[in-house]
Amino acid sequence: MTCKCSQQIEVSQDKMEEECGVFGIYAPNNGTDVANLTYLGLHALQHRGQESAGICVNNHGEFNLHKDMGLVTNIFDEDKLEALKGHAAVGHVRYSTTGSSMMANAQPLLTNSIKGDLAIAHNGNLVDGAEMRKNLESQGSIFHSTLDTEVIAHLVARSFKDDITEGLKHSFQQITGAFSIVAMTEDCLMAARDPQGFRPLSIGKLGDSYIVASETCAFDIIGAEHIRDVKPGELVVIDDEGITSTFYTERKASKFCVFEYIYFSRPDSVIANQNVHLARKDMGRQLAREMDVEADIVVPVPSSGITAALGLAEESGIPYQKGILRNRYVGRTFIQPTQEIRDLKVRIKLNPIEDIIEGQRVILVDDSIVRGTTSQQVIRMVREAGAAEVHLAISSPPVQYSCYYGMDTSRRQELIAAQHDLDGIRDHIGADSLTYLSIEGLLNSLDADCGFCTACFDGDYPIGKGTGKLSFE
Amino acid sequence: MTCKCSQQIEVSQDKMEEECGVFGIYAPNNGTDVANLTYLGLHALQHRGQESAGICVNNHGEFNLHKDMGLVTNIFDEDKLEALKGHAAVGHVRYSTTGSSMMANAQPLLTNSIKGDLAIAHNGNLVDGAEMRKNLESQGSIFHSTLDTEVIAHLVARSFKDDITEGLKHSFQQITGAFSIVAMTEDCLMAARDPQGFRPLSIGKLGDSYIVASETCAFDIIGAEHIRDVKPGELVVIDDEGITSTFYTERKASKFCVFEYIYFSRPDSVIANQNVHLARKDMGRQLAREMDVEADIVVPVPSSGITAALGLAEESGIPYQKGILRNRYVGRTFIQPTQEIRDLKVRIKLNPIEDIIEGQRVILVDDSIVRGTTSQQVIRMVREAGAAEVHLAISSPPVQYSCYYGMDTSRRQELIAAQHDLDGIRDHIGADSLTYLSIEGLLNSLDADCGFCTACFDGDYPIGKGTGKLSFE
Amino acid sequence: MTCKCSQQIEVSQDKMEEECGVFGIYAPNNGTDVANLTYLGLHALQHRGQESAGICVNNHGEFNLHKDMGLVTNIFDEDKLEALKGHAAVGHVRYSTTGSSMMANAQPLLTNSIKGDLAIAHNGNLVDGAEMRKNLESQGSIFHSTLDTEVIAHLVARSFKDDITEGLKHSFQQITGAFSIVAMTEDCLMAARDPQGFRPLSIGKLGDSYIVASETCAFDIIGAEHIRDVKPGELVVIDDEGITSTFYTERKASKFCVFEYIYFSRPDSVIANQNVHLARKDMGRQLAREMDVEADIVVPVPSSGITAALGLAEESGIPYQKGILRNRYVGRTFIQPTQEIRDLKVRIKLNPIEDIIEGQRVILVDDSIVRGTTSQQVIRMVREAGAAEVHLAISSPPVQYSCYYGMDTSRRQELIAAQHDLDGIRDHIGADSLTYLSIEGLLNSLDADCGFCTACFDGDYPIGKGTGKLSFE
Amino acid sequence: MTCKCSQQIEVSQDKMEEECGVFGIYAPNNGTDVANLTYLGLHALQHRGQESAGICVNNHGEFNLHKDMGLVTNIFDEDKLEALKGHAAVGHVRYSTTGSSMMANAQPLLTNSIKGDLAIAHNGNLVDGAEMRKNLESQGSIFHSTLDTEVIAHLVARSFKDDITEGLKHSFQQITGAFSIVAMTEDCLMAARDPQGFRPLSIGKLGDSYIVASETCAFDIIGAEHIRDVKPGELVVIDDEGITSTFYTERKASKFCVFEYIYFSRPDSVIANQNVHLARKDMGRQLAREMDVEADIVVPVPSSGITAALGLAEESGIPYQKGILRNRYVGRTFIQPTQEIRDLKVRIKLNPIEDIIEGQRVILVDDSIVRGTTSQQVIRMVREAGAAEVHLAISSPPVQYSCYYGMDTSRRQELIAAQHDLDGIRDHIGADSLTYLSIEGLLNSLDADCGFCTACFDGDYPIGKGTGKLSFE
Repeated sequence: MTCKCSQQIEVSQDKMEEECGVFGIYAPNNGTDVANLTYLGLHALQHRGQESAGICVNNHGEFNLHKDMGLVTNIFDEDKLEALKGHAAVGHVRYSTTGSSMMANAQPLLTNSIKGDLAIAHNGNLVDGAEMRKNLESQGSIFHSTLDTEVIAHLVARSFKDDITEGLKHSFQQITGAFSIVAMTEDCLMAARDPQGFRPLSIGKLGDSYIVASETCAFDIIGAEHIRDVKPGELVVIDDEGITSTFYTERKASKFCVFEYIYFSRPDSVIANQNVHLARKDMGRQLAREMDVEADIVVPVPSSGITAALGLAEESGIPYQKGILRNRYVGRTFIQPTQEIRDLKVRIKLNPIEDIIEGQRVILVDDSIVRGTTSQQVIRMVREAGAAEVHLAISSPPVQYSCYYGMDTSRRQELIAAQHDLDGIRDHIGADSLTYLSIEGLLNSLDADCGFCTACFDGDYPIGKGTGKLSFE
Repeated sequence: MTCKCSQQIEVSQDKMEEECGVFGIYAPNNGTDVANLTYLGLHALQHRGQESAGICVNNHGEFNLHKDMGLVTNIFDEDKLEALKGHAAVGHVRYSTTGSSMMANAQPLLTNSIKGDLAIAHNGNLVDGAEMRKNLESQGSIFHSTLDTEVIAHLVARSFKDDITEGLKHSFQQITGAFSIVAMTEDCLMAARDPQGFRPLSIGKLGDSYIVASETCAFDIIGAEHIRDVKPGELVVIDDEGITSTFYTERKASKFCVFEYIYFSRPDSVIANQNVHLARKDMGRQLAREMDVEADIVVPVPSSGITAALGLAEESGIPYQKGILRNRYVGRTFIQPTQEIRDLKVRIKLNPIEDIIEGQRVILVDDSIVRGTTSQQVIRMVREAGAAEVHLAISSPPVQYSCYYGMDTSRRQELIAAQHDLDGIRDHIGADSLTYLSIEGLLNSLDADCGFCTACFDGDYPIGKGTGKLSFE
Repeated sequence: MTCKCSQQIEVSQDKMEEECGVFGIYAPNNGTDVANLTYLGLHALQHRGQESAGICVNNHGEFNLHKDMGLVTNIFDEDKLEALKGHAAVGHVRYSTTGSSMMANAQPLLTNSIKGDLAIAHNGNLVDGAEMRKNLESQGSIFHSTLDTEVIAHLVARSFKDDITEGLKHSFQQITGAFSIVAMTEDCLMAARDPQGFRPLSIGKLGDSYIVASETCAFDIIGAEHIRDVKPGELVVIDDEGITSTFYTERKASKFCVFEYIYFSRPDSVIANQNVHLARKDMGRQLAREMDVEADIVVPVPSSGITAALGLAEESGIPYQKGILRNRYVGRTFIQPTQEIRDLKVRIKLNPIEDIIEGQRVILVDDSIVRGTTSQQVIRMVREAGAAEVHLAISSPPVQYSCYYGMDTSRRQELIAAQHDLDGIRDHIGADSLTYLSIEGLLNSLDADCGFCTACFDGDYPIGKGTGKLSFE
Repeated sequence: MTCKCSQQIEVSQDKMEEECGVFGIYAPNNGTDVANLTYLGLHALQHRGQESAGICVNNHGEFNLHKDMGLVTNIFDEDKLEALKGHAAVGHVRYSTTGSSMMANAQPLLTNSIKGDLAIAHNGNLVDGAEMRKNLESQGSIFHSTLDTEVIAHLVARSFKDDITEGLKHSFQQITGAFSIVAMTEDCLMAARDPQGFRPLSIGKLGDSYIVASETCAFDIIGAEHIRDVKPGELVVIDDEGITSTFYTERKASKFCVFEYIYFSRPDSVIANQNVHLARKDMGRQLAREMDVEADIVVPVPSSGITAALGLAEESGIPYQKGILRNRYVGRTFIQPTQEIRDLKVRIKLNPIEDIIEGQRVILVDDSIVRGTTSQQVIRMVREAGAAEVHLAISSPPVQYSCYYGMDTSRRQELIAAQHDLDGIRDHIGADSLTYLSIEGLLNSLDADCGFCTACFDGDYPIGKGTGKLSFE
């Protein structure tokens, strides 16, 4: 907290980043401590965003919100949770962008309008957000943030529908994009997904209480049961009467973000009836079948490459070795060492074990490459530890296109696979060989009850790019 | 920060409280450090509000805002000021209400609309704020706070006037209430007062830069020169061309808040060409002329009663004695002692000097009584120190009516002078005699170039009470 | 906390500084919350030291200590006080030196030896501390701090006396210097003063509990009764049996630090049966009798000059005017403004009221001059506010010699009165005239039951300078 | 920081705990930033202690120390490291005991004596510490902490040897116990191990600078080269002349703590020419050979059981499965959920993947069992996830005896293997079968250049238990 950002080094992951995790609970039983359960749920969703977090409770009509920059465990303490009494709650964790991060963009967003209080937590990105915003401004709306969520709040307030639930449906009909949303009014909790179902959202149950969360791991942490996923185009309303389902639009082909299986979601989560860890392991197996390399050991880049490496080793018969250690005490940022030791960046987080690597032909496994910076550093580190050969195996296809549906892929010009062909990438990162999983192989590895968006691999954008605003802008 | 509010004791002042202080600067010279100057200015205005503070800078079109709960010196440090580069700035300090204080209500308020970015800092209270808000909501506006300032931002955004300056004037024409406002757009800094000029707002100059601030003490701290006050009904626009004055309404009788002279403003400030300290001393002199008590010493309740006590002592010839010490290390709150010592509250802040007080007939001087709790405790304390008689002299008239124009007087039923007559108050606080300054005496003590609002004394509300929302609600 | 020291400006006082305040309580009644009472007592003594503070409790043999850098209100919160259960306690506040301040030097000092646990809180300075330390080291003692207190702890541990109380007396017989000490063993609380009684120490009573403190204001804050002062050369032992007095040395001429009356002690404290405020006022009266200046108004430098100014005004008949305002929100340090506004240092704290000062012949009153820097700045400020003449009146004699007995006077070469004669000082600070109180006048103003040390004025050191280690080194 | 300890739950590991990590550097080249390198080294050693950390630098004779409670990254920031200029440094991390943790016990310990300044960082435990301390006290020594380190500092100060290096050797000859020590005087850096070499200590080199550290991973992080280990009974002196080795005692059988290989040390460290990860994997292989269980999958308890599980799976041919996920955002403590969800403790940290575990016969692998609480919870969790059978395999022998040589094993009565036989333990934790590695099997798995202490398994204490003070007391 006391350090200037410019003087810290980011122990960067060179990964695509999710933009948010959402959580909601409605507890007709007054004894349920909704703030504590939301706190635990957000804790389980912490991997989906580390910039800011917030919890808004509804205490029979009185709303109370606390949000701040930082991790869930740093933002909330016993006193703050104690103060958040209520029978329903909405929570949110937000991804840490590297640029200017604004307190004004922390969620849930709580607004008051003619239709009453409304708290919204949102995961996704509207492709027509900028246009909708301009349109609203031309009608006299004012904005406090750069959140798409605020666009939705305005649409609800301005809807000709008197009822806030109908207003929300009406607003969904006007927007185009990826959104998994949890919303809370004085009377109910609501959960909805966009018509293509780009981002995950599941429904759980704990005693009398209904819960919604981005991932099922948030149910496990509090001992709740996973009921089902919210369906694309569905709006679920939870109140004292129980749970009601409506569809605000007609069915469309589902286009779930395949990167949730590749990297974002927690391995213990289940999405579309497919466990993430098992999917990831099958990608490793498939990768083994697709690659043609002789090697002595399979070594994962921890921790993103571990599961695929296990699958690859099993299928190929090449021994799996934990040849690189990850320091578990590394936080996300770290004080900048002096110039003398500036190039130690990666070693602060990862350290190769020479006794394992020396003299070996190594297949290094990771889940994806974005800009290629970390791959380059890890390969150099492994060579310095004495590897005879270093072959990089990636359990997903080359990321060649930016995402407009809620993940931060960087701009296209920063994507190494958009700038170079396979040989060019291999040369840049310094590997002896480089193998990516094919798109077909990827899709074959998955056994989920949904269709997929693969736009970042093939540029086939299911709902277009709109005004071209990137997800992380 | 680590203590629950319920476990602290408020070392309360039992005083009326101001709701805000505002500051603005426009520096055509790029070298001027507007954030640092605003920081110092807010520091000088800290007595006008200790709940939250904020600074918004405009760096040639790019706005940057930092605000938080707490004192100016705690919220800003070198790094944060360093990050606030710009050529213009708006700052705000906000009063600490005892109830729920909301981060959402910290100012300046920064919003974006079709007319561009707009940062507003506001001191005052709209009497028709609730109505205006309801009206805006019925047209689809959403609200993030309970601030009147947000009403004004909406009115500007919705105004048919394209120009933001004209939009601001248009919004002022639609509202009724007390407001001293500093606003910043991409192109200019603006300062305005309501038609009656309830709250203060002055213009200063430092080199090429124009400055506006609630009180002139904010000019002194940075070595700026006091030019003149903003006039009631005036909107001043400052940009690269210099300063331009327009009136958005026709002249009305000025009704400046007389309590600024009695208690709120800093003694070293000059308002309407009248120094506050000297005004306060003259109130003490006038009080001496109006009271008829024999006594041995004049003792101020520190520090609110000091100046009037000096005037009273001079005029009456009764010796002035610093018979009560104020501990300068007392913060606003304090850990709660155990029950055993709970009644020590006042002694933590004040301690009578027995060697001065013992056996004396004491005239105790304070500036005002609100609920009477502190007066009662101080009188008991002085008696316990051996005073032969305790006469309380108050350098203002009895506060009998709540304020709707920007000061926190408590609700009417909490005002001791609204519940009891003079004898009743005297009995309640336990004084041997009680003398208030008369309204005529008060007004005669003042030599300012303005008319006055005396509604809290006589119930004569210049612009009504509107929907009856109190200033602090 | 987040700022680098080098980037803050000290809103300096240019005053002599006390090095410590001590407090102790022994409560035979188990219900008494000794930690809370000590916390309040230290709060009342906060003016004696703002660098660090600590409380050590004895819970029937189990000692528990918490100390840290900072103000009492910042170091302790409810949880920390709650954890400090006990029937006896010792507390300490320590002066903030400008140089390197060490956590290792925070007090109370808690050590364990063959004689048991011993917690010591110390106000003063040993003139032979360095020698004693060297002697102990040559016998194999190790030191963790640079505190004289640690020397005393070693002497107790090494004493041939088995009993810890006798050991303490024995250690006092071996040292030379100024010390007011509160010590706590498993069985008792002890309080002692050096044979000359340089520094204050008083005994109070609250119900069954005995209390000792540097000043009587620490009794007032908790409603305790002042019994008497600890006598020079006396060791008082408090345990379940009550209070016992012994003298560890024969009577010597008492040499109480006269600066306690001039500046250090709180005005509401009583030392040697003399109230400090009244003493200070009499110094002002005496100064009036000694000075020969024609002037229109008497203006104090707040807040150190206020009391003497009142006395001077009363005696001279020249009107007293609060011509300079002191901002009560100034903390001890402050973020450094840019170079542009670096010379605003004094204005951040003090602001002259032009309407009072303009055209007047002003007698500016302060209690003392150390280096002269603040006097120079204040005089310039008053001239800029339009004063016709500025005469400086100081209610104490010129400080020409460093102190070796527990106050920080700076080194001799920094004392302006050691470098210049009266005219030289006057020229340096830019006053039209300069008047100091005479030593005789000072002593005549005092009506205390003790003799005085005036070494800082006349160089007459009652117990020598020892190895010449200054109090603040 | 804001939470009361009693209201947090410890996400406990039920593991033996190391008591400390030490680091030292001597840089004849003035440009080397010793504080930053020490900071990074301590970061790599963070797993050896999370209670407190400290760095002491020597700037050509001037010592400067900063230490505090907490993690390395929380205690130090850029400003604090900047202030620690020097040419040599000593650093320390200390284990978090659950009881009262004292600031006074943070290290390095910096003391001053007749022989000069001495900073000591210590990993280990003296078996005769209490006796030595009593002896020193009887000679007049005083103690500020309960650290064995302070005993050593006293012995050095009191040694008849004038030279501080000789004094340190002399002190080592007087004590019995486990100690790996880094010490710094004005002239040199020293590193020493006890005659049996219980705890690790290695020597590295970075350019001109020599470095010593508890583990070689601290060399890797700063790019230093591992030269060799400090030998049992050796004292290494590093100064401007380079490195000098002496032995303060005759050679004895080396007795290195075998638990360093089992659990404490980082897998990427090399001790006695044996990589820790490979040793741990061989333990898993050996365990496979010793166990006789039919099962479908091998699942590690993350992260302590991962390496042994890989070895066990390889040797047995049973597939390795990551059936339990570990949440990497769990800190060491966590706000206490309400009673309702108190039993979620383990799930906050671990979550089983049902799709992997359901219906399977699971071999659960962990490195050791101390009290058995976590094993019980994990087994229950795995059963609830649908496992058909749960067999627990432990890659070390039963811990039946407390350690007196520097690790926290809990008291004997808390060790489940000291209270129950194999069947009793199996029943208590609820496993279908339980297999421990044999002592012979353990020793056969190791290929290190040293002998081992196995006292915690067989009660054969190489240097006795002394006065019976446990390591963690």
